[in-house]
Amino acid sequence: MDHLRDVLDRGETAHGCWLSLPNQHTTEVVARIGFDYACVDTQHGLADYTNAIAMLQVMELSDATPIVRVPWNEPGIIGRMLDGGAMGIIIPMVNSVAEAEAAVHACRYPPEGGRSHGPFRAAAQHGPDYSATANDRVLCIPMIETMHAVERLDEILAVPGVDAIYVGPADLSLSLGLEPRNNDDDARFTETIEHIAATAAAAGVVPGIHANAGLASRRQDQGFRLITVSTDAAALRSKLADELRVSREGGGTEDSSVY
Amino acid sequence: MDHLRDVLDRGETAHGCWLSLPNQHTTEVVARIGFDYACVDTQHGLADYTNAIAMLQVMELSDATPIVRVPWNEPGIIGRMLDGGAMGIIIPMVNSVAEAEAAVHACRYPPEGGRSHGPFRAAAQHGPDYSATANDRVLCIPMIETMHAVERLDEILAVPGVDAIYVGPADLSLSLGLEPRNNDDDARFTETIEHIAATAAAAGVVPGIHANAGLASRRQDQGFRLITVSTDAAALRSKLADELRVSREGGGTEDSSVY
Amino acid sequence: MDHLRDVLDRGETAHGCWLSLPNQHTTEVVARIGFDYACVDTQHGLADYTNAIAMLQVMELSDATPIVRVPWNEPGIIGRMLDGGAMGIIIPMVNSVAEAEAAVHACRYPPEGGRSHGPFRAAAQHGPDYSATANDRVLCIPMIETMHAVERLDEILAVPGVDAIYVGPADLSLSLGLEPRNNDDDARFTETIEHIAATAAAAGVVPGIHANAGLASRRQDQGFRLITVSTDAAALRSKLADELRVSREGGGTEDSSVY
Amino acid sequence: MDHLRDVLDRGETAHGCWLSLPNQHTTEVVARIGFDYACVDTQHGLADYTNAIAMLQVMELSDATPIVRVPWNEPGIIGRMLDGGAMGIIIPMVNSVAEAEAAVHACRYPPEGGRSHGPFRAAAQHGPDYSATANDRVLCIPMIETMHAVERLDEILAVPGVDAIYVGPADLSLSLGLEPRNNDDDARFTETIEHIAATAAAAGVVPGIHANAGLASRRQDQGFRLITVSTDAAALRSKLADELRVSREGGGTEDSSVY
Amino acid sequence: MDHLRDVLDRGETAHGCWLSLPNQHTTEVVARIGFDYACVDTQHGLADYTNAIAMLQVMELSDATPIVRVPWNEPGIIGRMLDGGAMGIIIPMVNSVAEAEAAVHACRYPPEGGRSHGPFRAAAQHGPDYSATANDRVLCIPMIETMHAVERLDEILAVPGVDAIYVGPADLSLSLGLEPRNNDDDARFTETIEHIAATAAAAGVVPGIHANAGLASRRQDQGFRLITVSTDAAALRSKLADELRVSREGGGTEDSSVY
Amino acid sequence: MDHLRDVLDRGETAHGCWLSLPNQHTTEVVARIGFDYACVDTQHGLADYTNAIAMLQVMELSDATPIVRVPWNEPGIIGRMLDGGAMGIIIPMVNSVAEAEAAVHACRYPPEGGRSHGPFRAAAQHGPDYSATANDRVLCIPMIETMHAVERLDEILAVPGVDAIYVGPADLSLSLGLEPRNNDDDARFTETIEHIAATAAAAGVVPGIHANAGLASRRQDQGFRLITVSTDAAALRSKLADELRVSREGGGTEDSSVY
Repeated sequence: MDHLRDVLDRGETAHGCWLSLPNQHTTEVVARIGFDYACVDTQHGLADYTNAIAMLQVMELSDATPIVRVPWNEPGIIGRMLDGGAMGIIIPMVNSVAEAEAAVHACRYPPEGGRSHGPFRAAAQHGPDYSATANDRVLCIPMIETMHAVERLDEILAVPGVDAIYVGPADLSLSLGLEPRNNDDDARFTETIEHIAATAAAAGVVPGIHANAGLASRRQDQGFRLITVSTDAAALRSKLADELRVSREGGGTEDSSVY
Repeated sequence: MDHLRDVLDRGETAHGCWLSLPNQHTTEVVARIGFDYACVDTQHGLADYTNAIAMLQVMELSDATPIVRVPWNEPGIIGRMLDGGAMGIIIPMVNSVAEAEAAVHACRYPPEGGRSHGPFRAAAQHGPDYSATANDRVLCIPMIETMHAVERLDEILAVPGVDAIYVGPADLSLSLGLEPRNNDDDARFTETIEHIAATAAAAGVVPGIHANAGLASRRQDQGFRLITVSTDAAALRSKLADELRVSREGGGTEDSSVY
Repeated sequence: MDHLRDVLDRGETAHGCWLSLPNQHTTEVVARIGFDYACVDTQHGLADYTNAIAMLQVMELSDATPIVRVPWNEPGIIGRMLDGGAMGIIIPMVNSVAEAEAAVHACRYPPEGGRSHGPFRAAAQHGPDYSATANDRVLCIPMIETMHAVERLDEILAVPGVDAIYVGPADLSLSLGLEPRNNDDDARFTETIEHIAATAAAAGVVPGIHANAGLASRRQDQGFRLITVSTDAAALRSKLADELRVSREGGGTEDSSVY
Repeated sequence: MDHLRDVLDRGETAHGCWLSLPNQHTTEVVARIGFDYACVDTQHGLADYTNAIAMLQVMELSDATPIVRVPWNEPGIIGRMLDGGAMGIIIPMVNSVAEAEAAVHACRYPPEGGRSHGPFRAAAQHGPDYSATANDRVLCIPMIETMHAVERLDEILAVPGVDAIYVGPADLSLSLGLEPRNNDDDARFTETIEHIAATAAAAGVVPGIHANAGLASRRQDQGFRLITVSTDAAALRSKLADELRVSREGGGTEDSSVY
Repeated sequence: MDHLRDVLDRGETAHGCWLSLPNQHTTEVVARIGFDYACVDTQHGLADYTNAIAMLQVMELSDATPIVRVPWNEPGIIGRMLDGGAMGIIIPMVNSVAEAEAAVHACRYPPEGGRSHGPFRAAAQHGPDYSATANDRVLCIPMIETMHAVERLDEILAVPGVDAIYVGPADLSLSLGLEPRNNDDDARFTETIEHIAATAAAAGVVPGIHANAGLASRRQDQGFRLITVSTDAAALRSKLADELRVSREGGGTEDSSVY
Repeated sequence: MDHLRDVLDRGETAHGCWLSLPNQHTTEVVARIGFDYACVDTQHGLADYTNAIAMLQVMELSDATPIVRVPWNEPGIIGRMLDGGAMGIIIPMVNSVAEAEAAVHACRYPPEGGRSHGPFRAAAQHGPDYSATANDRVLCIPMIETMHAVERLDEILAVPGVDAIYVGPADLSLSLGLEPRNNDDDARFTETIEHIAATAAAAGVVPGIHANAGLASRRQDQGFRLITVSTDAAALRSKLADELRVSREGGGTEDSSVY
């Protein structure tokens, strides 16, 4: 369950999967693939708290570290996801030092923060020393996804307790006046994310980014070390479309599997 | 909602998707791909009645015809799935004329059968003339998946009301003493399924089979016209494994999509 | 919780509500209206076991007796609904003495029947003497809904443990070659249901029937004493259609209520 | 899905239904009635996020536009409901310009607002151009329900991006020192809501109000053009009470329907 | 449903159960034990809104008063839990007068507060006079769980509408630099909680505390009158561990019960 | 996951827990206690298929082997629970050789039985060799709970594939004309269960029984080796009642735990 932190501490790159489908059975499929982490997205994905907890339970079947993107920078939901077993929290739209401090405050027990104590599932899942060790094990990962945040990047990165940052390319693009996608064909986009990666690394904070499998190598070359390379719903959609096309048009590889 | 029957009536081949994941959101992804049908598997898949109904609701968002594989040849569950909106029922392990007759009896209103009347959702979904037209619209699809059934194939195909049959390659293989998979490298397997396809077609019954995208062309060449080419869980698993491999090893195609 | 049996024992007529919507919150609305019973329909309605149990729990908030229509004459599901707190079971399509005996067998503990013991919720809900008294308190209510059953009515009514019978007008009509509805304009329909009511009453068995509010008086005049007069989904649909019409066309009664 | 906006843009009056029951099956009944919109109430109604999304899915079966009342003016939940497919958001207790601006900010992508991008379901449901068109299609509807808000009405209406306002008669009445109901027999209530309707219309903002079928005509005459005329739970309760009364006392209209 | 307030008004001590497991069936077990109150914990427990409402429904089967601990001091969720039937709200981390006032504001209708009106379930459950009486019946219970709050205790207790306070020993201990548990062996802990109890009592506010059965007498002696003595998950865990040990090692008391 | 079979193969006694509460969170508590097996009771307990699968998933977090009691001797539900990951099936009311053979037929793949192939979850959970090894690993456990069965015990035990039998004391008592409980004070009861244990052991079939912690030693002395010693709901109820009593009357042991 500390696999992700271990990978990052070794200076390696972690590859993760994004969970948009609110279902412990899609999660079970993901858990057995071999990702370094899986993130339950409760901001733009379809899981709510109850689904998320069931998904976190199932993630325990794997070595992948379970993390959660919360819908908003709010201490109630951050605490609940940590109590439910998440070992990392991605917090959207952190645009200022105050917001970064609030994120850390919600993720850490006193004296480092103000997290309320009651790790009902987390202690069962992560061991009897959870309360004593959680502040060192839980990853606090603010999102950097507006130019407002980029302009304050140094200060945000200097907030004690920020373990990694996570770039949201769609919102960052909107903030740059671009379409909400990966705009690698636009210099401003490329310069901005490379600037973020370099600045974070220099500050001793892990640079992370939302990507896809095709962009993984490029992002790694750009310095990112926490890279989301798959999304359950997108993988399902693209594979099924491919399979239907192959079935209608021919050209597939024969396969003896039955399910 | 009658799309599948229309495709079959035109003598064309229908390609479908298998739903093993019990979730209306994976179903919604499937519904928008373009399959001719999608089958909620309540035998070996993970959906129960409540999930299945939610999935049938969501299938209405698409042209794909919703069908259900019931867990067993039992009139209670067949009636419930039809009342819930399924336009076809796949019935496992039909090994005798009596079992085929029982399947038809459960799928048809009197006088053709003994289905009890009360199509609460089905009438809402399939129109005010549902009660009067259901016997002509609902597909009754027994599975042929043991040598016991193959030996009685002519009689089973002659049961009035059998619209199609559906070959289960894993159970059929077990019945042949083979491993539970597609044994296209074994002549007995190939001869048996080709025999089933030809016999069904000759009897005016649509030959169907559980397959995968890579086998779709071969199965179509063998005479099958109702071919399941994808399974949600399998598609998800194989795509994610590919994406993780590409991400770690490089070689993917860059892609601007963000989710 | 024994209200329904008390009403029937006093020779009065019980009016009930049918629950087709799988939801404890619609049930809570129903529970507070004042019906003598409410029946969770797990045959043609949308509730499955888990919903049904939640609905039975909520029915305890009212004096209305909770009963369940099971999907089929099968001892497993009958036992589960009784263990879950149902005080009566309506069993569809009882067409023979053997089927009536099977229904009773599933509803009664030994020596009167073969119900397996384990009334986890039922004992909590219906008191510490539940095990000792259940055989006298639980209502076993086979449906009479085919001419096959009508022809064997005397024998079916003579099966010990049949407390009431319940006419299904749609299936009975299909069996008569009529459309699946209340065919009060057809003499065969009227004669048949009046024959059933009279025969049951003569045999000391309560005659029950599925009806609606407009037909309640007529059915009571015909001798029925267990009359379902409302269905949640139908009431909702008809009221909303009325309200939308009135809102668009005018003519409603002003009302200060806010929800 | 843009039906409501189209009705309003044509200067017509929209009639809607309120969804207090947390259930996709009551929603399916509503979806087939013919309302111009249906609103999932997650403030005082019983739906939470997961139920709401399932209800939004089912609303796609109809022409009625799905909207959501969020529990509070909080960007996380507004974004989630929009991502889930809601085409309008009703925000309670908007009492100041700052609160109205916050509501708009949460409903609009940059540069008009600060909504985070990730319309997973919304893009599937509302078309590939959803991201580019959402700011013009999504309705932002603050509630005016205190005298504090009424005193600032002009300023609130002047906030760019406020498409309609929605009067909550119960809270407004409490704010006036009246009982929490429609107080049409009190001049202050009537004057206040007529003032709101007139002021909104003059500002080019659609005046909306929570009402009931009996009050629909009066509210339309008072200038409202977005009028909620039914609530699922209230309709169910009143119809069932009527039906039980008619069944016990006689006087109903005979009806051949069976469910 | 007003049992808790009655007990407290009589100057007696109330003993309650904590509900961490998100399930109406564990709640039903609790409801039949005889506690004065049961609290659905939606902060550190596993219930979310939908579970909580189902649990509140089931609590109506008992005399125990249903209360809820909300995840955070946020008016949206407080209102929703009250509308769902909670008769008391425990609000975590109230550290200032402003926070205490916000808690009261969310719990009371105008003019005492700003709770929005729409008690859909609460009015059904707690009677037709609910709207008129709720301000006098609903208990507003801020948590005192940091030294920051203890330093402002007099002012917080003086906020009109604070009915009781509730000490969280784990967070209070963290704030004291102690381990997150009951530190009765540490004088600072003991002095602090005794100071809170005495100060609250002197201010006419009921002192409450999270405890366990073994500490109940001590806490009562210390002046607390609202004492949580059991938690469902902890009781289950400790009893099962005892039973397994006894089964393996011998020494249990023979018992004829079968479930 | 093969822990139970290993314990039994070593000739040791297995102690298990009964899961009547339909909830993966109570299951998670159970999973971490240390039982040899846990049985999801879908006959008299409250779990249905969907809950059961979630509970089986969570059982994978422990060494305890997950088994399921099915509601009835029906191949559809037996196959579904095995596909879902159960490593043993307890089948109620097996009263004849034919019924025992049917139970085995449903639990074993060909050629030993007729289980249909499609172990979607089971293969993921129990390893890639699941299909090849399942017949040797899955435990088929008929219940002996009537005198009818006792009279045919030798023949039932001789059915190939019966791994263990499981005595239901309540139903067996009813069959003996006794109250439905453990009747250790009645010689007929004691003689009967001792006869069953001895006969099974002699036939090389593991004797199992439903018991409780207090009776565990006695049952082990009587020769039983598969002994259910706890039930989640009963443990919860008895512990909470104890805790409330201690809290009100005093006498508990002080305890620093906070939840």
